[in-house]
Amino acid sequence: MSNLDVGKLRRYASISREAARPGVINLNPIQRGGLLPEEVQKILIEFKDGYSICDFCLKGRIDKIDKPPVSDFLSDLASFLGMDVVRLVNRSRDAIFVILMALKKSRGGSAVVLDSNAHYSTYLAAEAAGLEVVEVPNSGYPEFKVDLGAYKDAIAEAEERTGEPPVAAILTHADSHYGNLNDPRPVSELCRKLGVPFILNAAYTAGVMPVDGRELGIDALVSSGHKSWASSGPIGILALTSELAEEVLVPSSRFRDKELFLLGCPVLGAPLATLMASFPYVVERVRRWPEEVEKARWLVAELERIEGTRQLGVRPKEHHLICLETPGFHEVAKRHKKKGFFLYRELKARGIVGIRPGLTRRIKLSTYGLSEEELARVAEAFQDIARKYGLAVS
Amino acid sequence: MSNLDVGKLRRYASISREAARPGVINLNPIQRGGLLPEEVQKILIEFKDGYSICDFCLKGRIDKIDKPPVSDFLSDLASFLGMDVVRLVNRSRDAIFVILMALKKSRGGSAVVLDSNAHYSTYLAAEAAGLEVVEVPNSGYPEFKVDLGAYKDAIAEAEERTGEPPVAAILTHADSHYGNLNDPRPVSELCRKLGVPFILNAAYTAGVMPVDGRELGIDALVSSGHKSWASSGPIGILALTSELAEEVLVPSSRFRDKELFLLGCPVLGAPLATLMASFPYVVERVRRWPEEVEKARWLVAELERIEGTRQLGVRPKEHHLICLETPGFHEVAKRHKKKGFFLYRELKARGIVGIRPGLTRRIKLSTYGLSEEELARVAEAFQDIARKYGLAVS
Repeated sequence: MSNLDVGKLRRYASISREAARPGVINLNPIQRGGLLPEEVQKILIEFKDGYSICDFCLKGRIDKIDKPPVSDFLSDLASFLGMDVVRLVNRSRDAIFVILMALKKSRGGSAVVLDSNAHYSTYLAAEAAGLEVVEVPNSGYPEFKVDLGAYKDAIAEAEERTGEPPVAAILTHADSHYGNLNDPRPVSELCRKLGVPFILNAAYTAGVMPVDGRELGIDALVSSGHKSWASSGPIGILALTSELAEEVLVPSSRFRDKELFLLGCPVLGAPLATLMASFPYVVERVRRWPEEVEKARWLVAELERIEGTRQLGVRPKEHHLICLETPGFHEVAKRHKKKGFFLYRELKARGIVGIRPGLTRRIKLSTYGLSEEELARVAEAFQDIARKYGLAVS
Repeated sequence: MSNLDVGKLRRYASISREAARPGVINLNPIQRGGLLPEEVQKILIEFKDGYSICDFCLKGRIDKIDKPPVSDFLSDLASFLGMDVVRLVNRSRDAIFVILMALKKSRGGSAVVLDSNAHYSTYLAAEAAGLEVVEVPNSGYPEFKVDLGAYKDAIAEAEERTGEPPVAAILTHADSHYGNLNDPRPVSELCRKLGVPFILNAAYTAGVMPVDGRELGIDALVSSGHKSWASSGPIGILALTSELAEEVLVPSSRFRDKELFLLGCPVLGAPLATLMASFPYVVERVRRWPEEVEKARWLVAELERIEGTRQLGVRPKEHHLICLETPGFHEVAKRHKKKGFFLYRELKARGIVGIRPGLTRRIKLSTYGLSEEELARVAEAFQDIARKYGLAVS
């Protein structure tokens, strides 16, 4: 055994977060849709142990547990998403990886088509599954709009390069860079016609805005509980049509009741308990999506009053994730002794966190779930900092 | 959008657990080593949101975060295990899967050797990675002792069947069926000699008992935070020698700072925060392992006083997971109106849970971390139930 000093290790037991302090506003776009509602905290404590959901596992499958009602919950969740079957995994990327591994095995293809605003992890899932990537381009600066019409060419290119149809086409519903929202329908119609399974990465959409897989013609939808479903997480949602489920959720050859590519029972415990407990809250909040879009637009207008600040991505905003170029703040950073960290510090002094520490050239933030008063505090804080450093505010 | 009734969905927000009630003793062997210490509950709340660890992510890699000190923690954790590099994943099985995928790619083999007491998920990880399984036999009823000497034959058989050495040999340190503890040394020595990477599945050992990978000659060690490290989980530990880490933690070809087979940043938030916070507690408790073995032996002796009851697996116990055949209780179940559930109910009436509901022919339980008073309560409860149904207690 090593000679670790337990006294020194005790610092790991006293870690804390600025963002967890009362009254602090967290603008991090990766976090706002995942924040655990106050009332779900008791469920987190009740189910704090890893196998807390499994006390009454009678069939050796977490998706078949009735006490607590996991089985009913998964079925309601599928119905909410307009899909047939739901399984839970660790992250959205694991859901994509599971689908790609399964489809590669069942169909034998060796390429996948994805949009060029896809999250880095989508590229990794493809590479780990041994698939070549064919990208659908976007329009570049400043809109970075994905050219949905180019899926047709990309699928053809994949076929040309590998001699087989791609195992799937993936579209990022709203991307993590610019918060551009894409309409899945033209892509789903094309995929249906060509017989290519269509995967929608709804990590930033399902759970915060209405998404109906059936209406959108999706074969597989993945989402993220800790990004957009107010779950403690990490937890990923893998939602499938019955048809694709037969191809993806194949049994192990030796343990016929275990699903091979999930490696048996996936996520359990607190991530699942909090996903369940937050579900009624999520179903309600999704109905208020139009208000959330208004909030994003309002803040963009307020922040664009600051010299040089400009929203990137499609205008006007159709999603809560906002990307801004902020050359004014970037100039300040160049001459500030804290460099790029000055903005983080100035915001923190005003009770606001979540802008990536050190960044000033481009910043990302989210307005999701903020109250009007909080929104006003955010706008004022940015404008106040701008004025302090001599930037004009119109 | 579906027509879900939010009122009905509210039941998901009021789920609860018998095992979480104060004073209840939980004997579930999958749970005892994972129970979150009372003092860590505040960390669970502080880090309740999915990206709570990532507020100060400056390098885009969770293992490089300094605030909270994730980077230092992983290094201390590696040192505690006598390994060089640690990464965290969702479950032990994912750690095995990551290793197998990487080794299959780097070495090109197509088989893996494992012991026949391996968890079902080890078989699934092998199958999902596209590997053929060659099993090392055990002695069968009643000891089920793995024949460590037979690894040599199994490796030879793998080579004969596939024309290549197996990508790895896996040994389950203590298995989930009988709690048999295996000495890794003869297998690690053989593997070193043959150049076959040796993976120890320490899901039921590291975190509850001393395990020093360097001393044991292990190339890769996997463990389970929610099984044996007092973490809320789910969280799996992937610990490697520097040498094997170079082969397993390969970068993505496109995103050079992201680890391909982990699909980028793996587990975060509450599972990681509680693993960190429980670490000093775990380091201390591991030193008390000899007392834990004594507890298991004491309870076995007490339960074997019940007519027909007999411990399965190697005797005397060297691990806290106990498997018993209980033909006396099984006879009672046959004539009881609750059938096999009678035992669960009788125990529950005595404030004891964790025996799998419905089982009476063979039961599994754990004494890990129980106080002397709790142990006595457990022994008395079983003996009392036995007497109530006319079984002799010597």
